[in-house]
Order: sequence, then structure tokens, then C-alpha cells
Amino acid sequence: VPDVNRQIVLERLPQGDRLGPEHFRLTESARPTPGPGQALVRTRYISLDAANRAWMQGATYRSALNAGDVMAGGAVAEIVEAPDSDLKPGDLIWADTGWQDYALVPTKRLQKLPDVDQITHLISVYGVAGLTAYFGLLECGQPKPGETVVVSAAAGAVGSIVGQIAKIKGCRVVGVAGGAEKGRWLVDELGFDATIDYKAGGLRQQFKEVLPEGIDVYFDNTGGEIFEACLFAMKNHGRIACCGAVSQYDGAAPPHGPRGIPGLIVTKRLTLRGFVVMDFDDQRDQALKDLAGWVADGRLKVQEDIIDGLENTPAALIGLLAGENRGKRMIKVR
Amino acid sequence: VPDVNRQIVLERLPQGDRLGPEHFRLTESARPTPGPGQALVRTRYISLDAANRAWMQGATYRSALNAGDVMAGGAVAEIVEAPDSDLKPGDLIWADTGWQDYALVPTKRLQKLPDVDQITHLISVYGVAGLTAYFGLLECGQPKPGETVVVSAAAGAVGSIVGQIAKIKGCRVVGVAGGAEKGRWLVDELGFDATIDYKAGGLRQQFKEVLPEGIDVYFDNTGGEIFEACLFAMKNHGRIACCGAVSQYDGAAPPHGPRGIPGLIVTKRLTLRGFVVMDFDDQRDQALKDLAGWVADGRLKVQEDIIDGLENTPAALIGLLAGENRGKRMIKVR
Repeated sequence: VPDVNRQIVLERLPQGDRLGPEHFRLTESARPTPGPGQALVRTRYISLDAANRAWMQGATYRSALNAGDVMAGGAVAEIVEAPDSDLKPGDLIWADTGWQDYALVPTKRLQKLPDVDQITHLISVYGVAGLTAYFGLLECGQPKPGETVVVSAAAGAVGSIVGQIAKIKGCRVVGVAGGAEKGRWLVDELGFDATIDYKAGGLRQQFKEVLPEGIDVYFDNTGGEIFEACLFAMKNHGRIACCGAVSQYDGAAPPHGPRGIPGLIVTKRLTLRGFVVMDFDDQRDQALKDLAGWVADGRLKVQEDIIDGLENTPAALIGLLAGENRGKRMIKVR
Repeated sequence: VPDVNRQIVLERLPQGDRLGPEHFRLTESARPTPGPGQALVRTRYISLDAANRAWMQGATYRSALNAGDVMAGGAVAEIVEAPDSDLKPGDLIWADTGWQDYALVPTKRLQKLPDVDQITHLISVYGVAGLTAYFGLLECGQPKPGETVVVSAAAGAVGSIVGQIAKIKGCRVVGVAGGAEKGRWLVDELGFDATIDYKAGGLRQQFKEVLPEGIDVYFDNTGGEIFEACLFAMKNHGRIACCGAVSQYDGAAPPHGPRGIPGLIVTKRLTLRGFVVMDFDDQRDQALKDLAGWVADGRLKVQEDIIDGLENTPAALIGLLAGENRGKRMIKVR
């Protein structure tokens, strides 16, 4: 086991500017030694998520990040040493290791991950992305067969799974994504019924053409203008699952929210529900069983976007925020 | 029965300006004669509601109003003639009579109102105001004993009942209202625990002082800045009942919505639910029974603000939009 721990440190926090390579610094330190209640783990695959950027804005469902911290991030890692625990060297676990080769993590919360054919699936379809799509759509969105479901960031890790689950549940599915190529991929490969290209302009007009009868369920990954366009297109008694707001993370704090709030919530009798995937931990086993079944019978395609090398993590996140990924982006550390 | 029908006509729609007397005109026509399926009714008490102003902005849960229409509005009225129906002259019904002495209304939807000690209670506590407070708080807000409930427009028809029901349910209740006098009345007479005076400035600071631990349930009657302040003060897993947006009705269409949407909905896992009272018609009997019980045992005080004379209806609505009423405002027509 090498002695050197490569670490990507948050050199400084963005202050209303867009995230760039200058906000990060690669450094090296000695491989740490676990203290009481700690496990030493070695990072295998780091998950890249729009939420990583949100953590730089302030406290969310976790505390805010500070300059000088090793950049935070979830990863699949393997146990090197876990004294006072049943975990053995080589066992795979999920933890917030941060962007580094080795991390010390509290042993108490670690759980051995299930055996799967592909380790990367523990980050994509059986990880936070897949579970977020599953619970957000089914618990917060409550789609019924024949209803129209719209999902934003549709070609992303969560969106691409949301759309496919909605199809499995018998819905008409419209994805909002940037660029004609992503749109074609969603329709041809993932079975979406139609897409809306937010980069093509004329958002309201596109909504009218593609969704003349309105939206029953909107799964929101973006906030901002797309949220507003969906809000105006909602049917009465529609449901909005609020999952994230990637359009709002990478820049100055948004000066205002979408128009029509709360007026349209009232007149259309909408329900908006925000959620974080860990709120549904008690239903996790059933979710994983459903997801695995759909993957096995070919109805759920797993799309991954794997980039090699810890040193490329900052650029990979910056690119994700610009929408360059398709499916679940992650870094292969080793 | 007099032959003359006094009518208040919407002379022109406000175009981004505030509602004034110049938007109305008093006119007289002949008392109309019912056709097939119609009943002739005589207006007794007209309900004044912030929603009256919203109807001038465009289609809501009802179609938009047009210049030249008799101004729309709900009222308690008595049957003059109702051919093809079991209703007898003198029976009281609730209908959208509009602002006039006589109206023709479809017989089909008319229901005889229950006998009550005070006819005005059919508009306040047992009318739309009371039922809106009841269903919005209990169904959408789902308050639990010991929780903190905030209601805006707290001294208004709906807000004053929301706060009292929340107290009956064992909650801590904070009302947002304009002016120290209203605040004292809410605390001293209606049993609110505290109030916030939105006219006194320093809204965020007041929220911090009065609600250091945050809000579990917010019943929103106002939208706008108060909505935003509550959004930022919500606890995790809080619920917002979206009832109306009086701050947004009387002027230009709002250029934007509250900050923090959807970001705070996600991170705080909030549920926002819009509703219109008629969605709960099937639970109406139970609601009326509960409300009557609370009135009978003195735990729910009925506050009414009755203005005499049809000709005063425009000024009464304009005043209501400026927050001059306390409790349920209505016009006694006869």
C-alpha cells in the first residue's frame, strides 16, 4: 500500500463566480493512520454530483465547505484497516471520503456494499443517483399510468433514470436537456417520448408544442427558467418533485425565484415536495430490488461516464456543471 | 318585491394599477325573470374576498372577469322564485350572485343553507372563510400538538380562524399582520402567542426574534416578502399551505417569485400544497360540525366586519386589499 495520499484541496471558495480549476489545488500528504472508531479506506470511484457545487454556497443538508478543506465528495472505497469492526480489508463501502486516495472515516456508519457485477453500478443505478430517481419520482411525484411526466437535466445521472422508470410505470415522458444530440439519445436509446432543448431558445413555445395538455408530474433537477416554464405548464393537481437546482449553483446567489409562486400553486392546487435521498433509507432494500429487476430484464439502461484519474476530478465537476456528461459521471481513482 | 335591480358593474379592468372606485359603476336595471333551470334570488350579504381582485387578473380557478360584467362575488341570498326545484321563497342559499340586488342563478347547484343563529355566520365561520381555514390548516398543514404555526394576513377572515384552530390543536401560533393594534387584538382577544408586524420593517429580524427555532407549518395568505421570510425560517420537513397571495393581486403582475425556490424546498424537504376550498366539499359536514362545536364552547371567536349598503361594496373591497378589515368583511345588502 503506497504511503502517499494525493488530495484535492478547495483552494478558495467561489464568490459568486463560476467554478474553475483555480479553485482547487492538488497536494500530497502522508497516508493517515486510523484512531479509535476510525477506518482507513482507499478510494476507488468518486461520484461527481451537481450538489458538490451547492455545498460551496453554504449549509444545505450538510455543513458548508471551507477553503483549505479536502474537497468533499461521496465515493466507493475499500477498507484498508477497520479496527473494532467486522469489516475486512478489501470490503467495499460508501462514504464521504472526499477527493483523495485515502480517508479516515467513522467506522460506525459504514456498511459493506452488496456484491454486484460492476462496481460502478454502486455509484450509478444502485447508488445515490438511482435511489434519488426512484424515490423522488415514485414517492414525491406519485405518477399514474397514462400521465405525463417531465424531467429536467434529463440526460444526467438522475434524469436519465427518472425518465426510464416513468416509462416502466406507463407514463408519457418528456425530457428537458441541452442540445439536439442529447435529445436524440434520450428518445432513441432510452425510450423517452419527446424532448425539449433548453439551449435552442423559445422554451415556452416548445412547451406548448410538446405538452399541449400540460404536465402531471415534474421532476425538477434544475430550478430557474425550466422550473418556471414547467410551473406554467402544470395541470391542476399536478405534483412537482424538487430534487435539485443545478441552474442555480454555479454563480451568484439567485436574485429571485420563478414567477407564479405562490399564485399558480394555489390556483392549480399543486403539491411541491422537496426531498433528499437519505430520507428514504428505510425503503432502500425494496428500491434496490426493483432497480435490479429492471436492469436485469433490460428495461432500465445504465449509462455511465467514467473519467480516469484523481487529478481530473476538478475538470470533471466543472464539465458536469456545464452539462457535458451523459448519465452518471464518476472518477476512477484506482 | 321591488322592480329595480341595482348592479355594480366592472367599468374597466385595472391594468397594472391599484383598484380604485373608478373601476366600478353603479347602475340600475329591471329585476330579471328566471328562464328554464334558473332561480331568481335576492342578495342578502355579499362576501368580500381578496380573491375578488385576483379574478380581475386573469383566469384562476374560475374564468377571468371582463369589463362591463356585473362584478362577481359570492353571497348569501334568498330564493324569490325557483321553479322546477324544492326550494321555497325565503330559503337561504349560497351563490355567486355578483354585486347586485337580484340575480338569476342555475337552480341545479343550489343547496338550502342550514339554520343558524346568525345569518352572517354562513359567510364567516361556516362559509368559505371558515372552511378554507379548516381544510387548509388541517389537511395541507397537518399541524401536530407542540408545533409552531405561522399564518399571514392573520387578522383577516381566514387568518383569524386559522390561528384559533391551531391553538385548539395545541400549537404555538404566530400571526403576521399589519400594525401594532391588530397584533394586540390577535394576542389579547384571539389567544395568539405572538405576532409579527410586517408594516414595522425589519421582517427578517422580527422572524429571528419571535421564531428562533423556526416554523413547522406556514399558512400563506399573502405570498411575496412574507412568504419569502417564512420560507427561510421553515424547519426541515415543514409544510406550507398555499391559500392565496393577497400581496400580489392589487398591482402589476409580479416580476418574480420569492428567493430560495426551489433550493430551500429541497434542502429543507418542504412540502408546499396549494388548495381551493371546494376541493374538500366531500368533508364539509365534518368540518362544519367541528367549527360549530368550537364556536359553541367558546374556543373559536367569530369576528365579523359588516358594512351596510350595496353602494359601498367597491370601497369595502378596496379597503380590504389595504388590510383595513378585521375578521370577515361583508356587505349587508338587505
